[in-house]
Amino acid sequence: MTRKEKTDQVRIVLTLLEKNNQIELADFLESLTSSEVVYLMSKLRKRDQHKLLTIINPEEAADVIEELPDSQAADILEEMKAGDAAAIIKKLNSDDRADLIIELDKKGAEAILTEMNAAEAASIRKMIEYHPRTAGGLMITEYISYQAVSTVKEVINDLRGNAEKYKNYHVRYIYVVSEHNQFLGVLQMQELLLARSDQKLSEIVIKEVTAVNADTSLDKLIDLFETHNFYGFPVVDDQHHLIGVIRRKNILEAKNERTIHDHLQTQGIVGGDELRTMPVLTRSKRRLSWLSVNIILNLIAASVIAFYQETLSEVIALAVFLPIISDMSGCTGNQAVAVSMRELSLGIVRPGEAIRVWFQEIKVGLINGLVLGFLIGLTAFIWKGNIYFGLVVGGALAINTLVAVSIGGTIPVMLKKIKVDPALASGPILTTITDMIGFFLALGFATIALGKLTF
Amino acid sequence: MTRKEKTDQVRIVLTLLEKNNQIELADFLESLTSSEVVYLMSKLRKRDQHKLLTIINPEEAADVIEELPDSQAADILEEMKAGDAAAIIKKLNSDDRADLIIELDKKGAEAILTEMNAAEAASIRKMIEYHPRTAGGLMITEYISYQAVSTVKEVINDLRGNAEKYKNYHVRYIYVVSEHNQFLGVLQMQELLLARSDQKLSEIVIKEVTAVNADTSLDKLIDLFETHNFYGFPVVDDQHHLIGVIRRKNILEAKNERTIHDHLQTQGIVGGDELRTMPVLTRSKRRLSWLSVNIILNLIAASVIAFYQETLSEVIALAVFLPIISDMSGCTGNQAVAVSMRELSLGIVRPGEAIRVWFQEIKVGLINGLVLGFLIGLTAFIWKGNIYFGLVVGGALAINTLVAVSIGGTIPVMLKKIKVDPALASGPILTTITDMIGFFLALGFATIALGKLTF
Repeated sequence: MTRKEKTDQVRIVLTLLEKNNQIELADFLESLTSSEVVYLMSKLRKRDQHKLLTIINPEEAADVIEELPDSQAADILEEMKAGDAAAIIKKLNSDDRADLIIELDKKGAEAILTEMNAAEAASIRKMIEYHPRTAGGLMITEYISYQAVSTVKEVINDLRGNAEKYKNYHVRYIYVVSEHNQFLGVLQMQELLLARSDQKLSEIVIKEVTAVNADTSLDKLIDLFETHNFYGFPVVDDQHHLIGVIRRKNILEAKNERTIHDHLQTQGIVGGDELRTMPVLTRSKRRLSWLSVNIILNLIAASVIAFYQETLSEVIALAVFLPIISDMSGCTGNQAVAVSMRELSLGIVRPGEAIRVWFQEIKVGLINGLVLGFLIGLTAFIWKGNIYFGLVVGGALAINTLVAVSIGGTIPVMLKKIKVDPALASGPILTTITDMIGFFLALGFATIALGKLTF
Repeated sequence: MTRKEKTDQVRIVLTLLEKNNQIELADFLESLTSSEVVYLMSKLRKRDQHKLLTIINPEEAADVIEELPDSQAADILEEMKAGDAAAIIKKLNSDDRADLIIELDKKGAEAILTEMNAAEAASIRKMIEYHPRTAGGLMITEYISYQAVSTVKEVINDLRGNAEKYKNYHVRYIYVVSEHNQFLGVLQMQELLLARSDQKLSEIVIKEVTAVNADTSLDKLIDLFETHNFYGFPVVDDQHHLIGVIRRKNILEAKNERTIHDHLQTQGIVGGDELRTMPVLTRSKRRLSWLSVNIILNLIAASVIAFYQETLSEVIALAVFLPIISDMSGCTGNQAVAVSMRELSLGIVRPGEAIRVWFQEIKVGLINGLVLGFLIGLTAFIWKGNIYFGLVVGGALAINTLVAVSIGGTIPVMLKKIKVDPALASGPILTTITDMIGFFLALGFATIALGKLTF
């Protein structure tokens, strides 16, 4: 797909919008791939986005909305008429529906919910009550269930009669429930094929099936899906009523989203995913919230330098190496953070096993500290022709590398233990401490060796 | 799961190993969840890991290996007897098999492949020839196909007769091929249910099914699965022979792995996923390969300071702010990098659209530059009571923030355009340039205002 074609797609849509040509517009949108729709929408002005979503019918609009990242979709729906937005949201899959409502601002969400009938609104309200990273928040409610007293023939007839409706249900299993909707077991489609048509579901249902409670956490769900080769699990409430189905796809997507979320946080994008189509002030404010904490931590760290101003004025060449020590320690520490985060997510390291991690980390820290310290020390020595200067600079970096990997390796494990998000906090804590210690070591060593540092 | 219980699990396994109690050991392993197996194996010594995998039978061992991250599994299998390792690998799913062989070192992989019979080895060799992030590299070969001339009755009989074998195939679709194994179309299990038993597959087969070529890239596959609500796609070679099936699960997992891989790279873990169970020298070397490039870039950036040593010796207080300017510019730039990487992966921004990104980024850069510049300038002013000092420091950070977001936002887009991995290169390029410009601005401004900077 070249850039030229992309621009053509935008032009086509704008022309069709101008002509109010609903049918051709819907057909054209249908012909686009998922990423083409995302790109196209991001290229349209707000006004045109809204017009597009109201010209085509709600079902078609829901197809468009489903392609977009939640933050982009929420951004668009928020500013549409609540009635139009509600009509579209009603046509979304149950899991997408809740995700989207959560992304909306409170006022927008309420306006849209009041446009729905009471039952629909109640069902959405119930779903968004579950934490988005639990079975209740991730499940879909499009599943097929029959009471245990039904016969195979009745079920097959119902399936055939409602084939059109169930088409969007991605049916793999049939769920069997009691007359009070309590979960009893499952049946694979194939099994209906093998059964006698007069058999009751209660005779052929597979009962050794784990149902998960709506509060089950994403981590437990990941484990469950990795341990069992199932397509999905039934989700039940505390009274064991069947309330939804959670599929492998939901879990994998949620896992991926969490990875991305964590990555964005380590890079300083906190308070929600940013897209450049959002208002400038929102983007600016979100980024600043992180940066302003960071600038204070930076000032604290740099105050160590202020404390040693006299030494520094004697050995001004040291000023060249302070940013290097700061940056290199940050890098080595972040490597250790990344490995710990990875091992935590794989389950190789459990929260609280900081000592074990530390022992494994100091070996690497020793070797890398010696190598990096030697390299930077040699550079300093060659530049100024003073061996003591080389020792001061190299020694500080070598020791600080050891400090950095120790902190970087253990801090995510300890933060996780005390239930602080390590993706958010590890970086700033790490760099503040390693900066302070690094500056202290370099300037402290220089103060001791001051008499010898003449060049 | 508490830490105490974990340690108990290790103790139980060690006891069973000592007693050579195969049956109880296999039963116990079966009872563990996926992450418990990972944790347990990482707690055992090499010797015990090997003993465990040879005491239980190859099928059970394959179940254990499948739970482990590829790098950990490869690490263990590499040092086992090639024959034992081959027996286990044969029992893995087809997609896991190729992934694992790729992770092994060349010698280990060859030794294992020669232990297999010619057909098996050839099939694995063929699979690892495909790039791991293409349809050929991600597909599974456990699918069920029938020739178009078969009747519904024949197919149902075969399915019933081989129910045990097909159980592990996660059957959703039946693939229909010509007598030369060329792909013709698919059938859902349900459709067999609705068909007359004397109908030929050619009469009921759905032909409007996209088959993907083995070379199709992960990005295209993601798009395909997002656009279509299918469970999987058939994979064909250039002659349109059916060679495998790619499932949604494979795509979601590959996408997740790529996200993790990219994240690790931005954090300086390059050259492969690191686990702390790997040999210290391997870990040390991999981390150093990245750090040694970084130290050179750091030296280049810091050379700007060396150039301005005279100014710095006059205004020694500036040395306190240089690491702050370096770090803050790195942070603001990395935020912009993260947003660009995200928009690239969502398809909102296409490689080469650097100008568009830049326009969206400078607005945020202006606001945040003014805020951060004001904060740090005020601090400098209050500290030294000199307004010019505040202006020098604040002005340098304000302008450099603008520089940092401009470079941070556009560099991933440009790198992607010239096919350099932005996850790997964006960070180092960004920080080197912003360090140089930041030091240059602060020291340059100070040189100009030198007469006024007396305190």
